Amino acid sequence: MSDVENIKQLDLDNNLHSWSKQGDLNPEVITKAEGIYFWNEEGKKFFDMSSQLVNVNIGHGNSKVIAAIKDQADKFPYMGPGTAFAAKSKLAAKLIEIAPDNMEKVFFTIGGAESNENAIKIAKMFTGRHKIFSRYRSYHGATYGASNLSGEPRRFVSEPGIPGFVKFFDPYLYRSPIDFASEKEAAQYYLNQLREQIIYEGRASVAAVVIETVTGSNGVIIPPDGYLKGLRKICDEFNILLICDEVMAGFGRTGEWFACDNWDVKPDIITFAKGITSGYVPLGGVLVSSEIAEYFNEEKLMCGLTYSGHPMGCAAGLATLEVYEEENLIENSRNMGKVLGEKLEAIKDQHSSVGDVRYIGLFSAVELVKDKKTREPLTEYDNDQEGIMAGILKKLKNAGFSTYFHENILIVAPPLIIKEEELAVGLQILDDVLNEVDLMIA
Amino acid sequence: MSDVENIKQLDLDNNLHSWSKQGDLNPEVITKAEGIYFWNEEGKKFFDMSSQLVNVNIGHGNSKVIAAIKDQADKFPYMGPGTAFAAKSKLAAKLIEIAPDNMEKVFFTIGGAESNENAIKIAKMFTGRHKIFSRYRSYHGATYGASNLSGEPRRFVSEPGIPGFVKFFDPYLYRSPIDFASEKEAAQYYLNQLREQIIYEGRASVAAVVIETVTGSNGVIIPPDGYLKGLRKICDEFNILLICDEVMAGFGRTGEWFACDNWDVKPDIITFAKGITSGYVPLGGVLVSSEIAEYFNEEKLMCGLTYSGHPMGCAAGLATLEVYEEENLIENSRNMGKVLGEKLEAIKDQHSSVGDVRYIGLFSAVELVKDKKTREPLTEYDNDQEGIMAGILKKLKNAGFSTYFHENILIVAPPLIIKEEELAVGLQILDDVLNEVDLMIA
Ligand SMILES: Cc1ncc(COP(=O)(O)O)c(C=O)c1O
Ligand SMILES: Cc1ncc(COP(=O)(O)O)c(C=O)c1O
Repeated sequence: MSDVENIKQLDLDNNLHSWSKQGDLNPEVITKAEGIYFWNEEGKKFFDMSSQLVNVNIGHGNSKVIAAIKDQADKFPYMGPGTAFAAKSKLAAKLIEIAPDNMEKVFFTIGGAESNENAIKIAKMFTGRHKIFSRYRSYHGATYGASNLSGEPRRFVSEPGIPGFVKFFDPYLYRSPIDFASEKEAAQYYLNQLREQIIYEGRASVAAVVIETVTGSNGVIIPPDGYLKGLRKICDEFNILLICDEVMAGFGRTGEWFACDNWDVKPDIITFAKGITSGYVPLGGVLVSSEIAEYFNEEKLMCGLTYSGHPMGCAAGLATLEVYEEENLIENSRNMGKVLGEKLEAIKDQHSSVGDVRYIGLFSAVELVKDKKTREPLTEYDNDQEGIMAGILKKLKNAGFSTYFHENILIVAPPLIIKEEELAVGLQILDDVLNEVDLMIA
Repeated sequence: MSDVENIKQLDLDNNLHSWSKQGDLNPEVITKAEGIYFWNEEGKKFFDMSSQLVNVNIGHGNSKVIAAIKDQADKFPYMGPGTAFAAKSKLAAKLIEIAPDNMEKVFFTIGGAESNENAIKIAKMFTGRHKIFSRYRSYHGATYGASNLSGEPRRFVSEPGIPGFVKFFDPYLYRSPIDFASEKEAAQYYLNQLREQIIYEGRASVAAVVIETVTGSNGVIIPPDGYLKGLRKICDEFNILLICDEVMAGFGRTGEWFACDNWDVKPDIITFAKGITSGYVPLGGVLVSSEIAEYFNEEKLMCGLTYSGHPMGCAAGLATLEVYEEENLIENSRNMGKVLGEKLEAIKDQHSSVGDVRYIGLFSAVELVKDKKTREPLTEYDNDQEGIMAGILKKLKNAGFSTYFHENILIVAPPLIIKEEELAVGLQILDDVLNEVDLMIA
């Protein structure tokens, strides 16, 4: 057996892979990754059009971040959470600098789910309340707390659920039962509904409303005009904390440091992970406002994990933030996002299978339908038994376009370093494969 | 402000630290760590007598692991969980090789809490049942699922709890209400009680019994003779899975690869973290038996996280396992454990404040009391308002002995590379400080 075959066989024999029947697996053996590309065992090159799991924002193989990782490894790779050291101090200070100006302190975790877990614990401690609102079209992670926050089917395995976790509807205009005259009107409709639901659930028992500022995996759902400001107002009215999950949307993905900056809204808590290190070392965290930070001067913060403030993660995070700045990646996301948006609109016009395209910065989704007029989804919700979407993904992959899907939706979210020519070549592949999908539904 | 003062101030201004009132903090600024020692900003040297959070098993600054980290950083620091690559394949295969022989596959996570979260999800999927038993004197992590598993006060913040999580009593013989004639008799008593409780809760609805094989932070509670075998039997009788949390006890800490090896018991699931990389890069995981592994060939594994099977963690883990072998650390843990045990028995004899000492391998606890006869704990459970234990810890730290405590219990668990002379010098410090504690209660 060759070394590569051996690696694949060892993987199949010994590893469990996420969200899959293990019998169906045929993992790519990865040998190299550079910029917006990676290569498999046969030397085949792929456009990384989802930045892996929408986290490798600065692209693969960034030498500055790799150098910082090596440097911290030489100093000390690990120290417990109770200590202070340069990388953690500097990263925390830098985060507070780039975050909305009401943010005062950060609690470091190791991933997105852990960040949301800690955010809801902090909200419960700070408010003394226990109910948590979150939305149906959302994914917040797979640990129990994060999973109970999530609205989509991946939460079912974490049921029976935690008492007091309440779901509300998203302003998902493409599939709204109502035909609104404007985004503003739509926003107001969904806000009124939420306000009523909060009152029914008991306004004095709701600790927090948790949203993905821009919903990610569940379809890049962008808040309509006035929605976030209105949500902030409802939260203020009832003294409820607004928690923005920016695990996927943060760090330039939407063309701003944090997605909430697009609408100039200040959450009480922001959770992050993914883009903070571009995946190079596991890291996540919770940013909290001054009110919350001050509360914990006199009250015990009942949060903790062995790897909180991990030196390797902090060193990678600090270097990654510097890369965003030095390479103007936030700006590039905004500029290339315009190009991406235009190309996606053209794709939508040309393909009978494309019902909707949604985009902000380099964060976008292509929603597939059986019929453009009725908007019937290409696959039934939580019920794609024939594996139609997996089939489409495979065609894309064979053509060198790597991404992932959720329900009837393809994610397109390349690294923020992508250039216009590269975007054109990549999207041409998508265009070609969509011709085949058009034929499928014809 | 000097650079070091600046780092401390930046930390205090911007970071939230675990399990603390932030107003009380005065974190050590760490500048260097090597072997069983680390140094603060004033050049003061500390014995790391808890291996940080009982995870830096191979000691600080191991050059082999650091080299492996750098090497993987050069190859590719990150790839998504769906891929295969050398470090992940080899580490998984190696783990299956050293694990009990019924273990077949591993699901990689990033930490201890995440491992337990995934273990309970796997147990629920595999059994189709939803109740989970775990013990009062336990800590399994701070995310919702792990926190609801935990029995100690740190879980309260994750309440209202998840339905179906049931607690049972530990065979904590030092504080048992009954004076047993033998360990065997004690084991039988606690097993009978558990069996009865399972029947009361509905034997057909219990998915798993989760235990720390050797309870860690809650006081190094070692299962009495016959307990684990008996527990295995009860689980078999009712088709309940036995999950051993070896996050702290695994990887040589108890003188065997896994703590369950000490009693030759084969769990259905083992969770791990900490020692797998000695903390150098965040990593954790869930080992599952062949029956469970095979079940997921045809059923979807509903688990996942962005950093599952992280290349940097896997590379560090693989190198760490090689260090355990090349430096004979499992054996050293067993041998030095004997020395440690003898010294702790002497300490117990000499100090009126030491009620009990418990040890296995290089994993040990010193339980402090007000009165050796009545066994009254030095501090009340969950109610050390005067901060007596924190005061003792500070005395130890000032004398160069770094560790942590839980309730009225001091943990002593140095890196597995420790030598007999070093153990002697370190424990002399403990001995001296305990003289002061003796005076406190006199
Ligand atoms: C918005 C959002 N929140 C949380 C998570 C969970 O993060 P992790 O996979 O690091 O636990 C994800 C992961 O995709 C996410 O997209
Ligand atoms: C036995 C045990 N399980 C789980 C955990 C949680 O691990 P982590 O802090 O990596 O989430 C710990 C942490 O101390 C532990 O000791």
